[in-house]
Parts: sequence; structure tokens; C-alpha cells
Amino acid sequence: VTYCVSLLTAEGLVFLSDTRTNAGPDNIAAFTKLHVIAPGDRVMGLMTLGNLAVTQAVVTRVTEGLSDSGDQLETLYTTHSMFQAARLVGDAVREVYHRDGEALQAQGLGFDAAFILGGQIAGRRMRVFLVYSAGNFIEIMGDTPYVQIGETKYGKPILDRAMSFETPLEQAIKLGLISMDSTLRSNFSVGAPIDLMVYRRDALVVGLQRRISEDDPYFRMIREGWSDALRRAYHELPAPPWLAGA
Amino acid sequence: VTYCVSLLTAEGLVFLSDTRTNAGPDNIAAFTKLHVIAPGDRVMGLMTLGNLAVTQAVVTRVTEGLSDSGDQLETLYTTHSMFQAARLVGDAVREVYHRDGEALQAQGLGFDAAFILGGQIAGRRMRVFLVYSAGNFIEIMGDTPYVQIGETKYGKPILDRAMSFETPLEQAIKLGLISMDSTLRSNFSVGAPIDLMVYRRDALVVGLQRRISEDDPYFRMIREGWSDALRRAYHELPAPPWLAGA
Repeated sequence: VTYCVSLLTAEGLVFLSDTRTNAGPDNIAAFTKLHVIAPGDRVMGLMTLGNLAVTQAVVTRVTEGLSDSGDQLETLYTTHSMFQAARLVGDAVREVYHRDGEALQAQGLGFDAAFILGGQIAGRRMRVFLVYSAGNFIEIMGDTPYVQIGETKYGKPILDRAMSFETPLEQAIKLGLISMDSTLRSNFSVGAPIDLMVYRRDALVVGLQRRISEDDPYFRMIREGWSDALRRAYHELPAPPWLAGA
Repeated sequence: VTYCVSLLTAEGLVFLSDTRTNAGPDNIAAFTKLHVIAPGDRVMGLMTLGNLAVTQAVVTRVTEGLSDSGDQLETLYTTHSMFQAARLVGDAVREVYHRDGEALQAQGLGFDAAFILGGQIAGRRMRVFLVYSAGNFIEIMGDTPYVQIGETKYGKPILDRAMSFETPLEQAIKLGLISMDSTLRSNFSVGAPIDLMVYRRDALVVGLQRRISEDDPYFRMIREGWSDALRRAYHELPAPPWLAGA
């Protein structure tokens, strides 16, 4: 299972992803699900959910531009807009589906994939998209300034309560880590280390890229501090007035 | 969608259930999903998830004991043990499946049902069971002293962090309401009012039975207090030390 989340704020973007892949509980490995494109005139983060063979084929197609015919194709390094970049990812998903979908279906496997693509190209707007397995996509806007893929429910309540487009970038990193912690704690098939990438609007260089282990002192402090705060908050709320003899 | 949770503590049991049923967003109604059996020598709570036609058939069977042949059957009012009561619910699910499963399948509908049954019979142990749609069941024990059915994920993190078998009964009610609030807030198809039943171990009478509306002053205070506490807790945690120029 995967958990990836991207937070969209006025100041910039946060990308967070777990690294767990598994083909059953006896076959667990760590693969990055966060791919960073930063050649100088643009920064993009691409996070992936789904069958690793499918997502790797898509990522290879959109970063290396290899086609079946050997021709050099457009890539995330060459598109002129984020919209075009999202369409490129969608087209790549459709190509992979065209190639592998039937064989997967014949083995009883679904064609399961989703992608979060966000970033900025010089002279253009910073944008974030969610690309579906059918290759179509939506843009994430300020009304709901985050997007999740994978095991989304455990980490959603804190985002719904505390996240807004105006949240400072530093605070958004913290919120993302709290959301990730809730997911790690409730679903053992979502696993550390965590990949983090931060992009500050108009910077056109990566603001921060970091692999966060279970032992990372800051992440550990967030995890413990958050647990303590929840337990304290629950203790401080008054008990119900209804129970006789209590 | 449904959310029901039962909390098992040394002092007693808490049952909480939403009341939303829907057959699509344009056909929403409130039906109780918490059935209370309390004839004097026993108290049981039975909470239901699934197709309303299925769950009503099961509840009628185990409370009224009507069989297809018209014979009077054993019911939750007459069983000698909680284990037997759980088996009765399981048998009733199998009967309904036998009767309706094929017709449901022909219409492309799954046979979807689950039940939480808990309580105590005079002279016996207080016990809680989760009965599956196949009619088999498990007992809930102190290691994981709660059981949920339906839309379980949003309300699970707080239980995992703060709930134990030693939690006082009053505090368990509060935890259950926080868990319910997280679910109501993140999934609009889980809806108030909330049905609550509390049973104090060895009492053999219902400790508290209450329908809690959105406007209930205590529930409203819990909802607002919990939101405030989460936001405050997140603000109080320090920002990450990683971001240059922040």
C-alpha cells in the first residue's frame, strides 16, 4: 500500500511519499515513489501509486522519452506548461495500458495506477494535478489545497481541520508529516523511510529534498509530540454529563 | 455508509452507531442500527452494517424468533450464553443468505452485512462479538478493546492511541464520540443523530441509552473542543529545522 500527499500553499508545494512496495507480506521492499525533475528551468515532483511495473514504465516514458519505435519523444524536461506535462503523464498511462492492460487482466490483475504531478516551469504558474489510471486528470485548487493517493483516510482528518492555502510552507511540511504518521501508525503496509520534496513558488530550484527515516530526530519528535498532544487533548475534554453513578 | 463502534473496558461496554441509511445521495433516511435487548436478566446491544433488508431480516429473526415454518425459535431473549447469542446471529445471517443471496446476486448486489453483538447474561461473563456476513464470528478481547464496522478508518487513529481495556467507562464514551466525530466530518454519508448505549458490567440493566443529535450541547462541545485541540497541538509542535530561508 502507498500513501502520497501533496500540499498546495500560497508559498509553495510539499510532496511526501512513503517508500513501501509489497507483493504480499513476505515480499516487502523500499522503492522511491517520488521522482524529482529539476533541470534548472523547472521543478516538478511526480508521485506514483500502483503496480510497480506500470508506474516505472510511465515514469521512464515521461522522463526518458523512449518510445516503442525508438524515436525520442517529449518529456517532463521539455514540455512548455504544467498542463502539457499532466497530459504527457496521462498519455503515458494510456500507452502502458494499451501495451500491458490485457495481459494483466488475463492474470486477474487490475490496471491500478495514479499520479500526483506538481511544480512550475519558468514564466508559468505553479500547478498540481492528479492523473488517473484512465489518463485523464484534475487540477488541485486552493479550496481543497491538498491531494492524496493510496491509503488516504487515516491521514485526512488533520488536513481537513488544519490545512489551508494560506498555511505557511514550514507548517505545511509539519502537517504533511502528521498526516503521514497517522497513516504509518494505522496501516503497517505503508512504510518509512519517507521521501520529502519542498518547492518554494518561483524559485525554480528544489527547496528541500530529504529522505526521512524512522529514526530522524525531528520526525520522531513530531510522532511522539503528536501522540502526546492527542492523548492530552482527549483527557482535557470534560466527561459526558449523562452517566449516573459515575 | 455506516459507522458503528463498541468499546470494551473493565467497567463495561459502550455502543455507538450513526443512523444514516442511503440508497444513493438522493435517497437518505435515518434508521436505528443499534438494537437493545434488556428484559431484566440480560443486556445486549446489537449493531448492524449492510443492506437494510438483510439486517432487518436478521434482527427480526433473532429478536422475534419467527421462522419460515411459523415455529417459535430461540432468540436473544432466551439464549443461555453470549456465545450462543453470537451463534444465533450467525445462523440468522446464514438463513437470510440462503433465502435472499441468490436473488441479490442476480441483481448484481452483494450480500453485505456485519454485526457487533455485546452484553451480559445473569451469572455469565460480559462479552463482545463481531459476526461476519458468512455467519462466523470472533470475540473482541482486551488487547484490542474495541471493534468497528463500516467506515472505520477515520475514527481509528484516536482509538489506537488512547483506548485501553483500563480506560474508565466515562472516558470511553468520550473517546467513542471523538472517533464518531472524525468519521462524520470526513464522510458525509455517515450521519447524525448518533445512538449511544452504555452498559456497566454486572448491572444487568442498561446504564444509559441516548439519541444524540448534532445540536446536543455536550456532543457539540466535544466536536469543537477536539477540533480546537488538534489545531492547537499542531501549532505547538516545532517547525522542521530543514528549510533554508524560512
